[in-house]
Amino acid sequence: MSSAGSIQILAERPVGWLKEDSSEENIALSSRIRLARNISDFKFPINSSDTEREYVKEVISSAVNSSGIIKERLNFKIFELSSVNKRFLLERNLVSKNFCAGDIGSELILDGDESFGIMVNEEDHIRMQIFSAGFLLKDLWEKINEKDVALSKEVPFAFDTELGYLTSCPTNVGTGMRASVMLNLPGLSILGHLPGVIQGAEKLGMTVRGLHGEGSEVIGYMYQISNQSTLGESEEEIIGRLEKLIQQIVLFEKNARQILLQTRKNFVLDFVGRAYGALRYSYLISEKEALTFLSALRMGVDMKMFNSLNIGKVNKLFISVQDSHLQKIYGRELTPTERDSWRAELLREKLSN
Amino acid sequence: MSSAGSIQILAERPVGWLKEDSSEENIALSSRIRLARNISDFKFPINSSDTEREYVKEVISSAVNSSGIIKERLNFKIFELSSVNKRFLLERNLVSKNFCAGDIGSELILDGDESFGIMVNEEDHIRMQIFSAGFLLKDLWEKINEKDVALSKEVPFAFDTELGYLTSCPTNVGTGMRASVMLNLPGLSILGHLPGVIQGAEKLGMTVRGLHGEGSEVIGYMYQISNQSTLGESEEEIIGRLEKLIQQIVLFEKNARQILLQTRKNFVLDFVGRAYGALRYSYLISEKEALTFLSALRMGVDMKMFNSLNIGKVNKLFISVQDSHLQKIYGRELTPTERDSWRAELLREKLSN
Repeated sequence: MSSAGSIQILAERPVGWLKEDSSEENIALSSRIRLARNISDFKFPINSSDTEREYVKEVISSAVNSSGIIKERLNFKIFELSSVNKRFLLERNLVSKNFCAGDIGSELILDGDESFGIMVNEEDHIRMQIFSAGFLLKDLWEKINEKDVALSKEVPFAFDTELGYLTSCPTNVGTGMRASVMLNLPGLSILGHLPGVIQGAEKLGMTVRGLHGEGSEVIGYMYQISNQSTLGESEEEIIGRLEKLIQQIVLFEKNARQILLQTRKNFVLDFVGRAYGALRYSYLISEKEALTFLSALRMGVDMKMFNSLNIGKVNKLFISVQDSHLQKIYGRELTPTERDSWRAELLREKLSN
Repeated sequence: MSSAGSIQILAERPVGWLKEDSSEENIALSSRIRLARNISDFKFPINSSDTEREYVKEVISSAVNSSGIIKERLNFKIFELSSVNKRFLLERNLVSKNFCAGDIGSELILDGDESFGIMVNEEDHIRMQIFSAGFLLKDLWEKINEKDVALSKEVPFAFDTELGYLTSCPTNVGTGMRASVMLNLPGLSILGHLPGVIQGAEKLGMTVRGLHGEGSEVIGYMYQISNQSTLGESEEEIIGRLEKLIQQIVLFEKNARQILLQTRKNFVLDFVGRAYGALRYSYLISEKEALTFLSALRMGVDMKMFNSLNIGKVNKLFISVQDSHLQKIYGRELTPTERDSWRAELLREKLSN
């Protein structure tokens, strides 16, 4: 199947791990763990020729098959994809911006439900990622660890007994792991408490980023919290510390919402109500505005303001209102004005039921 | 009955002349004609003592009764009213700001359906006003002229055969008449064509003002168009010229909406849709914002965007969301935040049916 054909498969069904009747933690949108691995005795992708990268890709591809870590395998040759299709994968957080610039040998191997994927020849030979809705780091760690072990039986990873896993960039040496959770923090944002939260996270060696990770803008009160350091601790220790931090931020956010409800109830209801009103009745809406309002709406759903909405529906909209997703739904490239108009149409339709 | 008691009667029922199933001109909200008259051989109110003004009031009061020009008579001694009650009358355009500052002898005599009222001892001894929904100047002129003639048979008006009716301010000498129509002009406003319209009106000796007439702010795309000059023409001539001008502005506004629908359809739908969304789902909304959004909504109703709304409903809301009306509905004085909150509640309730 062509890479574009594989994109079409994804476009025609919802993200598998984003369940409709979601009972996940109501402030955490999603969790993700990614592991960076390289194959022994091969140069890092950035220093390799096309032929070497092609070869590495073949090696990894066979290893993935024989390891049995992927059920319904989809392949995406990144250089074959149009920019709309690349952005589609980016919007689903399945690839990095860096990976989208990749050439021959750069390939995404993805499980059909999108819960697990491998970027081959990104900055490292292997960047495997596992996803779930809500706040489930320990569970994800167990699952990705199993897959990592299975894969390592098929192909030898570059590993130093003192340093740990060797990676292209020194910031990943050691565990090669980055664990992250996406949090919706409108309460802390309204109260102006976010700078303090970000400082506190950084002191603990954690990083706070925007919707699409490194270098991306913060949109719609969505913050990605992840570990910065990968060296000197085990994966379980890092995840344990990250979990504690996130539990604390979630508590801060809950407190912020409580405070707002107690001291500025109408302000909060107004904040959410106007977001809903704009989503439901606008005819032109930008991606950024839609994501911001959906983020506010998510808080409203948590606060039981809406009978006819659940978090799952909002989560799905959060993905499908993004530019490339819209163009997939409507089957062709759209001008910026068409996007804003069709995004509004989609929102009106989905929210009026 | 006390003046406050009379206010309560008004507060408990809708404005009589604002019909629910309104078939009036869809760009004109309301028409009004007022006549300034003074009684021969009495000083103008501004130069009179309390005793003189009290006496003039008694004379007019009896004349009104014997003339039979008012069916269900209500009286409001302006100095007896609280500032909320004064503002209530202002919001219904039944009195002027100037009149609200009046002392002993300043009284509003009003017909119960609010279609006709007399401010006694405003700037002139008599300022009678007649109102209707829509654009009905000729009809109003016939009706107020009848009342004027009837009243003049009971009490002698100050009249000069060359100048016409004598008034306190020279700008009213002659006919003593000001005719005005309230227009909703969002189309011209969006297209930026209003400065040209205002200039054109001024060249024809007409004036463009805000929601509450002289010196009031323009709110919600509502513009009051009225004659400036009162001298050198008959009432019919003035009204004829004003009618022509207003027909032209209404045509301009219709064209503006057509142009917007043809060239920027989604923009217009968005403009109206977001106004509706904010009105229907906000929890804190200022008077100015509510009036602005209702004004946009009115255009949407004209454009058949809403099945469940008619112009009559919007017109009623346009009055009842104003500060003093809200306080009447809720039966007590409200803090600014309470007003914004209760206004939002009223709008949510009325628009959700």
